[in-house]
Amino acid sequence: MEQVERIGVSMDKKLLSAFDKLIAKQGYQSRSEAVRDLVRQQLSAEHIGNPKAEAVAGVLLVYDHHSTKLMEKLTDLQHSHLLQTICSMHIHLDEHDCMEVIVLRGQVGEINKTAENIVSQKGVKLGRINILSAKSP
Amino acid sequence: MEQVERIGVSMDKKLLSAFDKLIAKQGYQSRSEAVRDLVRQQLSAEHIGNPKAEAVAGVLLVYDHHSTKLMEKLTDLQHSHLLQTICSMHIHLDEHDCMEVIVLRGQVGEINKTAENIVSQKGVKLGRINILSAKSP
Amino acid sequence: MEQVERIGVSMDKKLLSAFDKLIAKQGYQSRSEAVRDLVRQQLSAEHIGNPKAEAVAGVLLVYDHHSTKLMEKLTDLQHSHLLQTICSMHIHLDEHDCMEVIVLRGQVGEINKTAENIVSQKGVKLGRINILSAKSP
Amino acid sequence: MEQVERIGVSMDKKLLSAFDKLIAKQGYQSRSEAVRDLVRQQLSAEHIGNPKAEAVAGVLLVYDHHSTKLMEKLTDLQHSHLLQTICSMHIHLDEHDCMEVIVLRGQVGEINKTAENIVSQKGVKLGRINILSAKSP
Repeated sequence: MEQVERIGVSMDKKLLSAFDKLIAKQGYQSRSEAVRDLVRQQLSAEHIGNPKAEAVAGVLLVYDHHSTKLMEKLTDLQHSHLLQTICSMHIHLDEHDCMEVIVLRGQVGEINKTAENIVSQKGVKLGRINILSAKSP
Repeated sequence: MEQVERIGVSMDKKLLSAFDKLIAKQGYQSRSEAVRDLVRQQLSAEHIGNPKAEAVAGVLLVYDHHSTKLMEKLTDLQHSHLLQTICSMHIHLDEHDCMEVIVLRGQVGEINKTAENIVSQKGVKLGRINILSAKSP
Repeated sequence: MEQVERIGVSMDKKLLSAFDKLIAKQGYQSRSEAVRDLVRQQLSAEHIGNPKAEAVAGVLLVYDHHSTKLMEKLTDLQHSHLLQTICSMHIHLDEHDCMEVIVLRGQVGEINKTAENIVSQKGVKLGRINILSAKSP
Repeated sequence: MEQVERIGVSMDKKLLSAFDKLIAKQGYQSRSEAVRDLVRQQLSAEHIGNPKAEAVAGVLLVYDHHSTKLMEKLTDLQHSHLLQTICSMHIHLDEHDCMEVIVLRGQVGEINKTAENIVSQKGVKLGRINILSAKSP
Protein backbone atom coordinates (compact mmCIF):
# COMPACT_ATOMS: atom_id res chain seq x y z
CA MET A 1 0.00 0.00 0.00
CA GLU A 2 1.30 3.49 -0.89
CA GLN A 3 1.88 5.80 2.05
CA VAL A 4 0.10 9.07 1.53
CA GLU A 5 1.21 12.34 3.09
CA ARG A 6 -0.66 15.60 3.27
CA ILE A 7 1.19 18.86 2.76
CA GLY A 8 -0.11 22.38 3.16
CA VAL A 9 0.30 24.91 0.37
CA SER A 10 -0.38 28.60 0.91
CA MET A 11 -1.68 30.55 -2.03
CA ASP A 12 -3.24 33.95 -2.24
CA LYS A 13 -6.96 34.00 -2.86
CA LYS A 14 -6.85 35.30 -6.42
CA LEU A 15 -4.35 32.71 -7.56
CA LEU A 16 -6.34 29.93 -5.94
CA SER A 17 -9.59 30.99 -7.54
CA ALA A 18 -7.97 31.21 -11.00
CA PHE A 19 -6.52 27.72 -10.47
CA ASP A 20 -9.86 26.32 -9.37
CA LYS A 21 -11.53 27.66 -12.50
CA LEU A 22 -8.86 26.21 -14.78
CA ILE A 23 -8.89 22.72 -13.32
CA ALA A 24 -12.70 22.60 -13.33
CA LYS A 25 -12.52 23.33 -17.05
CA GLN A 26 -9.91 20.64 -17.58
CA GLY A 27 -12.11 18.16 -15.76
CA TYR A 28 -10.19 17.57 -12.55
CA GLN A 29 -12.14 16.22 -9.60
CA SER A 30 -9.79 17.54 -6.94
CA ARG A 31 -7.03 20.08 -6.44
CA SER A 32 -4.70 17.42 -5.08
CA GLU A 33 -4.96 15.49 -8.32
CA ALA A 34 -4.23 18.61 -10.38
CA VAL A 35 -1.23 19.56 -8.26
CA ARG A 36 0.13 16.00 -8.37
CA ASP A 37 -0.10 16.05 -12.16
CA LEU A 38 1.86 19.31 -12.37
CA VAL A 39 4.48 17.84 -10.08
CA ARG A 40 4.77 14.61 -12.08
CA GLN A 41 5.11 16.44 -15.42
CA GLN A 42 7.94 18.49 -13.94
CA LEU A 43 9.68 15.39 -12.59
CA SER A 44 9.31 13.54 -15.88
CA ALA A 45 10.75 16.52 -17.79
CA GLU A 46 13.74 16.53 -15.48
CA HIS A 47 14.23 12.78 -15.57
CA ILE A 48 14.39 12.51 -19.34
CA GLY A 49 17.02 15.25 -19.46
CA ASN A 50 19.45 12.44 -18.67
CA PRO A 51 20.31 10.40 -21.82
CA LYS A 52 20.92 7.27 -19.71
CA ALA A 53 17.53 7.34 -17.97
CA GLU A 54 14.96 4.62 -18.63
CA ALA A 55 12.06 5.93 -20.69
CA VAL A 56 9.29 5.12 -23.11
CA ALA A 57 8.76 6.96 -26.37
CA GLY A 58 5.54 7.37 -28.27
CA VAL A 59 6.45 8.15 -31.87
CA LEU A 60 3.59 9.54 -33.97
CA LEU A 61 3.80 9.53 -37.74
CA VAL A 62 1.58 10.69 -40.56
CA TYR A 63 2.53 9.29 -43.94
CA ASP A 64 1.17 8.42 -47.33
CA HIS A 65 0.95 4.65 -47.54
CA HIS A 66 1.59 4.87 -51.28
CA SER A 67 5.10 6.10 -50.50
CA THR A 68 7.38 3.61 -52.13
CA LYS A 69 8.54 1.07 -49.64
CA LEU A 70 8.05 3.25 -46.60
CA MET A 71 5.97 0.65 -44.81
CA GLU A 72 8.62 -2.00 -45.38
CA LYS A 73 11.31 0.36 -44.20
CA LEU A 74 9.38 1.18 -41.04
CA THR A 75 8.85 -2.50 -40.32
CA ASP A 76 12.53 -3.23 -40.96
CA LEU A 77 13.58 -0.42 -38.68
CA GLN A 78 11.39 -1.69 -35.88
CA HIS A 79 12.69 -5.21 -36.25
CA SER A 80 16.29 -4.10 -36.28
CA HIS A 81 15.66 -2.36 -32.99
CA LEU A 82 13.58 -5.19 -31.61
CA LEU A 83 14.72 -4.76 -28.06
CA GLN A 84 13.50 -1.18 -28.09
CA THR A 85 10.28 -1.60 -30.03
CA ILE A 86 7.31 -2.65 -27.98
CA CYS A 87 4.41 -2.31 -30.38
CA SER A 88 2.73 -0.15 -32.95
CA MET A 89 -0.76 0.83 -34.06
CA HIS A 90 -1.92 1.90 -37.48
CA ILE A 91 -4.82 4.26 -38.27
CA HIS A 92 -6.31 5.01 -41.68
CA LEU A 93 -6.86 8.75 -42.02
CA ASP A 94 -8.05 8.96 -45.63
CA GLU A 95 -7.38 7.34 -49.02
CA HIS A 96 -3.78 8.44 -48.86
CA ASP A 97 -2.70 9.16 -45.35
CA CYS A 98 -2.10 6.88 -42.39
CA MET A 99 -1.15 7.60 -38.86
CA GLU A 100 1.13 5.25 -37.02
CA VAL A 101 2.02 5.20 -33.35
CA ILE A 102 5.16 3.30 -32.42
CA VAL A 103 6.08 2.72 -28.79
CA LEU A 104 9.75 2.35 -27.93
CA ARG A 105 11.41 1.62 -24.64
CA GLY A 106 14.99 2.01 -23.46
CA GLN A 107 17.52 4.64 -22.52
CA VAL A 108 16.52 8.17 -23.49
CA GLY A 109 19.54 8.65 -25.77
CA GLU A 110 19.04 5.35 -27.57
CA ILE A 111 15.30 5.51 -28.20
CA ASN A 112 15.58 9.12 -29.25
CA LYS A 113 18.08 8.10 -31.92
CA THR A 114 15.83 5.31 -33.19
CA ALA A 115 12.84 7.65 -33.13
CA GLU A 116 14.70 10.29 -35.15
CA ASN A 117 15.68 7.62 -37.61
CA ILE A 118 12.01 6.68 -37.99
CA VAL A 119 10.62 10.19 -38.46
CA SER A 120 13.38 11.10 -40.93
CA GLN A 121 12.37 8.37 -43.40
CA LYS A 122 11.41 9.60 -46.85
CA GLY A 123 7.63 9.73 -47.10
CA VAL A 124 6.96 10.53 -43.45
CA LYS A 125 5.00 13.79 -43.61
CA LEU A 126 4.75 14.60 -39.93
CA GLY A 127 6.53 13.10 -36.99
CA ARG A 128 6.40 13.72 -33.28
CA ILE A 129 8.55 12.17 -30.64
CA ASN A 130 7.26 12.04 -27.06
CA ILE A 131 9.58 10.81 -24.40
CA LEU A 132 8.15 9.98 -21.02
CA SER A 133 9.80 8.74 -17.89
CA ALA A 134 9.12 4.97 -17.69
CA LYS A 135 8.96 4.85 -13.93
CA SER A 136 7.11 7.73 -12.48
CA PRO A 137 6.62 8.05 -8.76
CA MET B 1 0.35 12.01 -59.58
CA GLU B 2 1.75 14.83 -57.43
CA GLN B 3 3.39 17.67 -59.31
CA VAL B 4 6.85 18.33 -58.00
CA GLU B 5 8.61 21.67 -58.20
CA ARG B 6 12.22 22.45 -57.54
CA ILE B 7 13.19 25.60 -55.70
CA GLY B 8 16.63 27.04 -55.08
CA VAL B 9 17.72 27.94 -51.58
CA SER B 10 20.89 29.91 -50.95
CA MET B 11 22.74 29.23 -47.76
CA ASP B 12 26.20 30.16 -46.66
CA LYS B 13 28.72 27.37 -46.63
CA LYS B 14 29.07 27.07 -42.86
CA LEU B 15 25.32 26.84 -42.29
CA LEU B 16 24.96 24.24 -45.02
CA SER B 17 27.73 22.09 -43.66
CA ALA B 18 26.27 22.20 -40.13
CA PHE B 19 22.88 21.24 -41.56
CA ASP B 20 24.36 18.35 -43.55
CA LYS B 21 26.01 16.98 -40.43
CA LEU B 22 22.82 17.20 -38.40
CA ILE B 23 20.58 15.48 -40.94
CA ALA B 24 23.14 12.73 -41.53
CA LYS B 25 23.02 12.06 -37.79
CA GLN B 26 19.21 12.05 -37.81
CA GLY B 27 19.25 9.55 -40.66
CA TYR B 28 17.95 11.63 -43.55
CA GLN B 29 18.79 10.39 -47.04
CA SER B 30 18.46 13.77 -48.74
CA ARG B 31 18.42 17.48 -47.95
CA SER B 32 15.12 17.91 -49.75
CA GLU B 33 13.45 15.45 -47.41
CA ALA B 34 14.86 17.21 -44.34
CA VAL B 35 13.74 20.63 -45.57
CA ARG B 36 10.28 19.35 -46.46
CA ASP B 37 9.93 17.95 -42.94
CA LEU B 38 10.85 21.28 -41.37
CA VAL B 39 8.31 22.98 -43.62
CA ARG B 40 5.55 20.51 -42.79
CA GLN B 41 6.12 20.78 -39.04
CA GLN B 42 5.83 24.54 -39.31
CA LEU B 43 2.62 24.28 -41.34
CA SER B 44 1.10 21.77 -38.96
CA ALA B 45 1.92 24.00 -35.98
CA GLU B 46 0.20 26.90 -37.68
CA HIS B 47 -2.81 24.85 -38.79
CA ILE B 48 -3.66 23.55 -35.34
CA GLY B 49 -3.60 27.09 -33.95
CA ASN B 50 -7.14 27.26 -35.28
CA PRO B 51 -9.63 25.54 -32.92
CA LYS B 52 -11.95 24.68 -35.82
CA ALA B 53 -9.28 22.93 -37.90
CA GLU B 54 -9.49 19.18 -38.55
CA ALA B 55 -6.85 17.30 -36.62
CA VAL B 56 -5.82 14.04 -35.01
CA ALA B 57 -4.62 13.76 -31.45
CA GLY B 58 -2.35 11.14 -30.00
CA VAL B 59 -2.93 11.06 -26.26
CA LEU B 60 -0.27 9.24 -24.25
CA LEU B 61 -0.96 8.14 -20.71
CA VAL B 62 1.00 6.40 -18.00
CA TYR B 63 -1.13 5.06 -15.16
CA ASP B 64 -1.25 2.43 -12.47
CA HIS B 65 -3.80 -0.17 -13.55
CA HIS B 66 -4.62 -0.80 -9.90
CA SER B 67 -6.09 2.69 -9.73
CA THR B 68 -9.64 2.21 -8.70
CA LYS B 69 -11.89 2.22 -11.68
CA LEU B 70 -9.58 4.26 -13.87
CA MET B 71 -9.72 1.75 -16.69
CA GLU B 72 -13.51 1.73 -16.66
CA LYS B 73 -13.54 5.52 -16.61
CA LEU B 74 -11.17 5.72 -19.58
CA THR B 75 -13.30 3.26 -21.52
CA ASP B 76 -16.45 5.16 -20.63
CA LEU B 77 -14.89 8.43 -21.70
CA GLN B 78 -13.86 7.01 -25.04
CA HIS B 79 -17.30 5.56 -25.66
CA SER B 80 -19.04 8.79 -24.77
CA HIS B 81 -16.88 10.52 -27.36
CA LEU B 82 -17.22 7.71 -29.85
CA LEU B 83 -17.24 9.96 -32.87
CA GLN B 84 -13.88 11.36 -31.84
CA THR B 85 -12.20 8.21 -30.62
CA ILE B 86 -10.57 6.13 -33.29
CA CYS B 87 -8.66 3.52 -31.37
CA SER B 88 -6.32 2.86 -28.49
CA MET B 89 -3.38 0.67 -27.63
CA HIS B 90 -2.30 -0.61 -24.26
CA ILE B 91 1.27 -1.39 -23.15
CA HIS B 92 2.36 -3.10 -19.92
CA LEU B 93 5.32 -1.23 -18.46
CA ASP B 94 5.77 -3.14 -15.20
CA GLU B 95 3.69 -4.82 -12.48
CA HIS B 96 1.98 -1.54 -11.75
CA ASP B 97 2.21 0.84 -14.63
CA CYS B 98 0.61 0.79 -18.05
CA MET B 99 0.98 3.09 -20.97
CA GLU B 100 -2.00 3.80 -23.16
CA VAL B 101 -2.14 5.60 -26.47
CA ILE B 102 -5.53 6.92 -27.52
CA VAL B 103 -6.06 8.40 -30.97
CA LEU B 104 -8.78 11.03 -31.36
CA ARG B 105 -9.98 12.82 -34.46
CA GLY B 106 -12.04 15.96 -34.93
CA GLN B 107 -11.81 19.70 -34.57
CA VAL B 108 -8.77 20.91 -32.63
CA GLY B 109 -10.87 22.58 -29.91
CA GLU B 110 -13.11 19.55 -29.38
CA ILE B 111 -10.47 16.85 -29.29
CA ASN B 112 -8.26 18.96 -27.08
CA LYS B 113 -11.10 19.19 -24.57
CA THR B 114 -11.66 15.44 -24.61
CA ALA B 115 -7.92 14.85 -24.33
CA GLU B 116 -7.66 17.15 -21.31
CA ASN B 117 -10.56 15.33 -19.76
CA ILE B 118 -8.72 12.04 -20.22
CA VAL B 119 -5.36 13.14 -18.83
CA SER B 120 -6.99 14.83 -15.84
CA GLN B 121 -8.56 11.59 -14.56
CA LYS B 122 -7.53 10.54 -11.10
CA GLY B 123 -4.83 7.89 -11.36
CA VAL B 124 -3.28 9.11 -14.59
CA LYS B 125 0.34 9.74 -13.64
CA LEU B 126 1.62 11.29 -16.84
CA GLY B 127 -0.26 12.55 -19.85
CA ARG B 128 0.83 14.08 -23.11
CA ILE B 129 -1.40 15.49 -25.78
CA ASN B 130 -0.09 15.68 -29.36
CA ILE B 131 -2.22 17.40 -31.91
CA LEU B 132 -1.31 17.00 -35.55
CA SER B 133 -2.90 18.41 -38.64
CA ALA B 134 -5.04 15.62 -40.15
CA LYS B 135 -4.47 16.67 -43.72
CA SER B 136 -0.94 17.68 -44.38
CA PRO B 137 0.14 18.81 -47.82
CA MET C 1 -2.91 43.30 1.54
CA GLU C 2 -3.33 39.98 -0.30
CA GLN C 3 -5.50 37.40 1.40
CA VAL C 4 -3.69 34.13 1.72
CA GLU C 5 -5.41 30.73 1.93
CA ARG C 6 -3.94 27.42 2.86
CA ILE C 7 -4.98 24.29 1.01
CA GLY C 8 -4.06 20.70 1.71
CA VAL C 9 -2.61 18.51 -1.00
CA SER C 10 -2.24 14.76 -0.54
CA MET C 11 0.64 13.09 -2.26
CA ASP C 12 2.14 9.68 -1.84
CA LYS C 13 5.46 9.57 -0.09
CA LYS C 14 7.58 8.63 -3.09
CA LEU C 15 6.19 11.43 -5.24
CA LEU C 16 6.68 13.95 -2.46
CA SER C 17 10.27 12.93 -1.85
CA ALA C 18 11.09 13.15 -5.58
CA PHE C 19 9.48 16.61 -5.69
CA ASP C 20 11.43 17.77 -2.64
CA LYS C 21 14.69 16.67 -4.26
CA LEU C 22 13.90 18.46 -7.50
CA ILE C 23 12.94 21.78 -5.96
CA ALA C 24 15.96 21.76 -3.66
CA LYS C 25 18.11 21.41 -6.77
CA GLN C 26 16.25 24.25 -8.49
CA GLY C 27 16.82 26.44 -5.48
CA TYR C 28 13.31 26.77 -4.04
CA GLN C 29 13.03 27.72 -0.40
CA SER C 30 9.60 26.21 0.15
CA ARG C 31 7.18 23.73 -1.40
CA SER C 32 4.41 26.34 -1.46
CA GLU C 33 6.52 28.59 -3.66
CA ALA C 34 7.31 25.74 -6.06
CA VAL C 35 3.66 24.69 -6.30
CA ARG C 36 2.51 28.28 -6.85
CA ASP C 37 5.00 28.61 -9.71
CA LEU C 38 3.69 25.46 -11.39
CA VAL C 39 0.16 26.79 -11.02
CA ARG C 40 1.04 30.21 -12.45
CA GLN C 41 2.84 28.75 -15.45
CA GLN C 42 -0.23 26.67 -16.22
CA LEU C 43 -2.54 29.69 -15.89
CA SER C 44 -0.31 31.85 -18.06
CA ALA C 45 -0.20 29.16 -20.75
CA GLU C 46 -3.99 29.01 -20.74
CA HIS C 47 -4.43 32.77 -20.72
CA ILE C 48 -2.30 33.44 -23.75
CA GLY C 49 -4.26 30.85 -25.74
CA ASN C 50 -6.73 33.68 -26.28
CA PRO C 51 -5.58 36.07 -29.05
CA LYS C 52 -7.41 38.98 -27.41
CA ALA C 53 -5.76 38.60 -24.00
CA GLU C 54 -3.37 41.26 -22.70
CA ALA C 55 0.20 40.03 -22.71
CA VAL C 56 3.86 40.96 -22.87
CA ALA C 57 6.29 39.43 -25.32
CA GLY C 58 10.02 39.05 -24.92
CA VAL C 59 11.50 38.66 -28.38
CA LEU C 60 15.08 37.37 -28.47
CA LEU C 61 17.18 37.77 -31.59
CA VAL C 62 20.67 36.79 -32.61
CA TYR C 63 21.93 38.56 -35.70
CA ASP C 64 25.05 39.70 -37.47
CA HIS C 65 25.23 43.46 -37.13
CA HIS C 66 26.98 43.63 -40.49
CA SER C 67 23.75 42.49 -42.11
CA THR C 68 22.85 45.19 -44.52
CA LYS C 69 20.37 47.56 -43.00
CA LEU C 70 18.97 45.07 -40.53
CA MET C 71 19.49 47.39 -37.57
CA GLU C 72 17.66 50.20 -39.33
CA LYS C 73 14.85 47.83 -40.27
CA LEU C 74 14.51 46.64 -36.69
CA THR C 75 14.39 50.21 -35.42
CA ASP C 76 11.84 51.15 -38.07
CA LEU C 77 9.70 48.17 -37.19
CA GLN C 78 9.73 49.06 -33.52
CA HIS C 79 8.83 52.66 -34.22
CA SER C 80 5.99 51.72 -36.53
CA HIS C 81 4.56 49.63 -33.72
CA LEU C 82 5.32 52.22 -31.09
CA LEU C 83 2.28 51.50 -29.01
CA GLN C 84 3.35 47.89 -28.68
CA THR C 85 7.07 48.34 -28.24
CA ILE C 86 8.20 49.07 -24.73
CA CYS C 87 11.96 48.83 -24.90
CA SER C 88 14.90 46.87 -26.15
CA MET C 89 18.36 45.87 -25.03
CA HIS C 90 21.40 45.09 -27.13
CA ILE C 91 24.21 42.68 -26.27
CA HIS C 92 27.48 42.20 -28.16
CA LEU C 93 28.23 38.50 -28.47
CA ASP C 94 31.36 38.61 -30.62
CA GLU C 95 32.84 40.58 -33.53
CA HIS C 96 29.90 39.63 -35.71
CA ASP C 97 26.93 38.61 -33.66
CA CYS C 98 24.62 40.62 -31.43
CA MET C 99 21.75 39.58 -29.29
CA GLU C 100 18.77 41.84 -28.95
CA VAL C 101 15.85 41.56 -26.59
CA ILE C 102 12.73 43.49 -27.55
CA VAL C 103 9.79 43.74 -25.18
CA LEU C 104 6.33 44.19 -26.68
CA ARG C 105 3.01 44.67 -24.98
CA GLY C 106 -0.55 44.35 -26.24
CA GLN C 107 -3.07 41.74 -27.31
CA VAL C 108 -1.59 38.27 -27.84
CA GLY C 109 -2.60 38.16 -31.51
CA GLU C 110 -1.20 41.59 -32.30
CA ILE C 111 2.13 41.32 -30.56
CA ASN C 112 2.65 37.84 -31.93
CA LYS C 113 2.24 39.24 -35.44
CA THR C 114 4.74 42.03 -34.80
CA ALA C 115 7.14 39.57 -33.20
CA GLU C 116 6.92 37.21 -36.20
CA ASN C 117 7.59 40.16 -38.45
CA ILE C 118 10.71 40.97 -36.45
CA VAL C 119 12.18 37.47 -36.35
CA SER C 120 11.50 36.92 -40.06
CA GLN C 121 13.72 39.85 -41.13
CA LYS C 122 16.59 38.93 -43.39
CA GLY C 123 19.76 38.67 -41.32
CA VAL C 124 18.12 37.47 -38.11
CA LYS C 125 19.85 34.18 -37.41
CA LEU C 126 17.87 32.99 -34.43
CA GLY C 127 14.64 34.27 -33.01
CA ARG C 128 12.54 33.26 -30.05
CA ILE C 129 9.17 34.64 -29.11
CA ASN C 130 8.03 34.37 -25.48
CA ILE C 131 4.56 35.45 -24.66
CA LEU C 132 3.61 35.85 -21.02
CA SER C 133 0.37 36.87 -19.42
CA ALA C 134 0.71 40.56 -18.45
CA LYS C 135 -1.42 40.28 -15.36
CA SER C 136 -0.76 37.19 -13.43
CA PRO C 137 -2.63 36.45 -10.22
CA MET D 1 33.12 37.49 -47.06
CA GLU D 2 30.80 34.51 -46.47
CA GLN D 3 30.73 31.94 -49.23
CA VAL D 4 27.21 31.27 -50.36
CA GLU D 5 26.03 28.04 -51.94
CA ARG D 6 22.80 27.34 -53.69
CA ILE D 7 21.03 24.03 -53.14
CA GLY D 8 17.97 22.68 -54.89
CA VAL D 9 15.01 21.44 -52.88
CA SER D 10 12.17 19.52 -54.51
CA MET D 11 8.74 19.93 -53.03
CA ASP D 12 5.36 19.00 -54.34
CA LYS D 13 3.22 21.87 -55.55
CA LYS D 14 0.68 21.78 -52.74
CA LEU D 15 3.30 21.82 -50.02
CA LEU D 16 5.15 24.67 -51.69
CA SER D 17 2.03 26.78 -52.06
CA ALA D 18 1.07 26.25 -48.39
CA PHE D 19 4.61 27.23 -47.38
CA ASP D 20 4.53 30.35 -49.54
CA LYS D 21 1.27 31.44 -47.91
CA LEU D 22 2.62 30.91 -44.41
CA ILE D 23 5.85 32.80 -44.89
CA ALA D 24 4.09 35.70 -46.59
CA LYS D 25 1.92 35.96 -43.49
CA GLN D 26 4.96 35.84 -41.22
CA GLY D 27 6.56 38.62 -43.22
CA TYR D 28 9.41 36.81 -44.95
CA GLN D 29 10.81 38.43 -48.08
CA SER D 30 12.21 35.25 -49.58
CA ARG D 31 11.89 31.49 -49.34
CA SER D 32 15.62 31.12 -48.81
CA GLU D 33 15.45 33.27 -45.69
CA ALA D 34 12.53 31.24 -44.31
CA VAL D 35 14.28 27.93 -44.97
CA ARG D 36 17.52 29.17 -43.44
CA ASP D 37 15.64 30.17 -40.29
CA LEU D 38 14.06 26.73 -39.97
CA VAL D 39 17.49 25.17 -40.38
CA ARG D 40 19.11 27.44 -37.79
CA GLN D 41 16.40 26.81 -35.21
CA GLN D 42 16.93 23.09 -35.64
CA LEU D 43 20.69 23.44 -35.28
CA SER D 44 20.38 25.62 -32.21
CA ALA D 45 18.00 23.13 -30.59
CA GLU D 46 20.50 20.36 -31.22
CA HIS D 47 23.48 22.38 -30.04
CA ILE D 48 22.03 23.29 -26.68
CA GLY D 49 21.24 19.64 -26.00
CA ASN D 50 24.87 19.43 -24.90
CA PRO D 51 25.37 20.80 -21.36
CA LYS D 52 28.95 21.84 -22.17
CA ALA D 53 28.04 23.91 -25.23
CA GLU D 54 28.51 27.70 -25.22
CA ALA D 55 25.17 29.48 -25.08
CA VAL D 56 23.31 32.61 -24.09
CA ALA D 57 20.18 32.59 -21.97
CA GLY D 58 17.44 35.16 -21.92
CA VAL D 59 15.65 34.82 -18.60
CA LEU D 60 12.27 36.55 -18.42
CA LEU D 61 10.64 37.27 -15.09
CA VAL D 62 7.40 38.83 -13.96
CA TYR D 63 7.35 39.78 -10.29
CA ASP D 64 5.78 42.13 -7.81
CA HIS D 65 8.39 44.71 -6.86
CA HIS D 66 6.82 44.95 -3.41
CA SER D 67 7.97 41.40 -2.75
CA THR D 68 10.17 41.62 0.26
CA LYS D 69 13.78 41.81 -0.75
CA LEU D 70 13.30 40.10 -4.09
CA MET D 71 15.05 42.87 -5.98
CA GLU D 72 18.06 42.72 -3.67
CA LYS D 73 18.14 38.94 -3.99
CA LEU D 74 18.05 39.14 -7.78
CA THR D 75 20.85 41.68 -7.80
CA ASP D 76 22.88 39.56 -5.40
CA LEU D 77 22.36 36.49 -7.51
CA GLN D 78 23.52 38.27 -10.62
CA HIS D 79 26.59 39.61 -8.90
CA SER D 80 27.53 36.25 -7.46
CA HIS D 81 27.42 34.86 -11.00
CA LEU D 82 29.13 37.86 -12.49
CA LEU D 83 31.02 35.94 -15.11
CA GLN D 84 27.75 34.59 -16.46
CA THR D 85 25.59 37.67 -16.17
CA ILE D 86 25.86 40.09 -19.06
CA CYS D 87 23.12 42.58 -18.41
CA SER D 88 19.50 43.05 -17.47
CA MET D 89 16.57 45.30 -18.33
CA HIS D 90 13.64 46.27 -16.19
CA ILE D 91 10.11 47.11 -17.39
CA HIS D 92 7.26 48.51 -15.31
CA LEU D 93 4.06 46.66 -16.14
CA ASP D 94 1.67 48.25 -13.63
CA GLU D 95 1.66 49.55 -10.05
CA HIS D 96 2.65 46.13 -8.78
CA ASP D 97 4.26 44.08 -11.46
CA CYS D 98 7.60 44.40 -13.20
CA MET D 99 9.14 42.41 -15.96
CA GLU D 100 12.85 41.79 -15.97
CA VAL D 101 15.01 40.31 -18.68
CA ILE D 102 18.38 38.96 -17.61
CA VAL D 103 20.92 37.80 -20.16
CA LEU D 104 23.38 35.12 -19.12
CA ARG D 105 26.24 33.59 -21.02
CA GLY D 106 28.26 30.44 -20.48
CA GLN D 107 27.96 26.67 -20.72
CA VAL D 108 24.39 25.41 -21.16
CA GLY D 109 24.46 23.40 -17.92
CA GLU D 110 25.86 26.26 -15.84
CA ILE D 111 23.63 29.05 -17.07
CA ASN D 112 20.59 26.83 -16.86
CA LYS D 113 21.35 26.24 -13.19
CA THR D 114 21.72 29.96 -12.50
CA ALA D 115 18.56 30.69 -14.46
CA GLU D 116 16.59 28.10 -12.47
CA ASN D 117 17.92 29.64 -9.30
CA ILE D 118 16.65 33.03 -10.44
CA VAL D 119 13.15 31.95 -11.48
CA SER D 120 12.70 29.92 -8.30
CA GLN D 121 13.10 32.95 -6.02
CA LYS D 122 10.14 33.68 -3.78
CA GLY D 123 8.07 36.46 -5.34
CA VAL D 124 8.82 35.61 -8.97
CA LYS D 125 5.38 35.04 -10.47
CA LEU D 126 6.33 33.89 -13.92
CA GLY D 127 9.67 32.83 -15.30
CA ARG D 128 10.83 31.67 -18.68
CA ILE D 129 14.26 30.45 -19.60
CA ASN D 130 15.37 30.66 -23.25
CA ILE D 131 18.64 29.11 -24.15
CA LEU D 132 20.10 29.91 -27.55
CA SER D 133 23.27 28.74 -29.17
CA ALA D 134 25.81 31.57 -28.79
CA LYS D 135 27.54 30.91 -32.07
CA SER D 136 25.16 30.13 -34.82
CA PRO D 137 26.38 29.46 -38.32
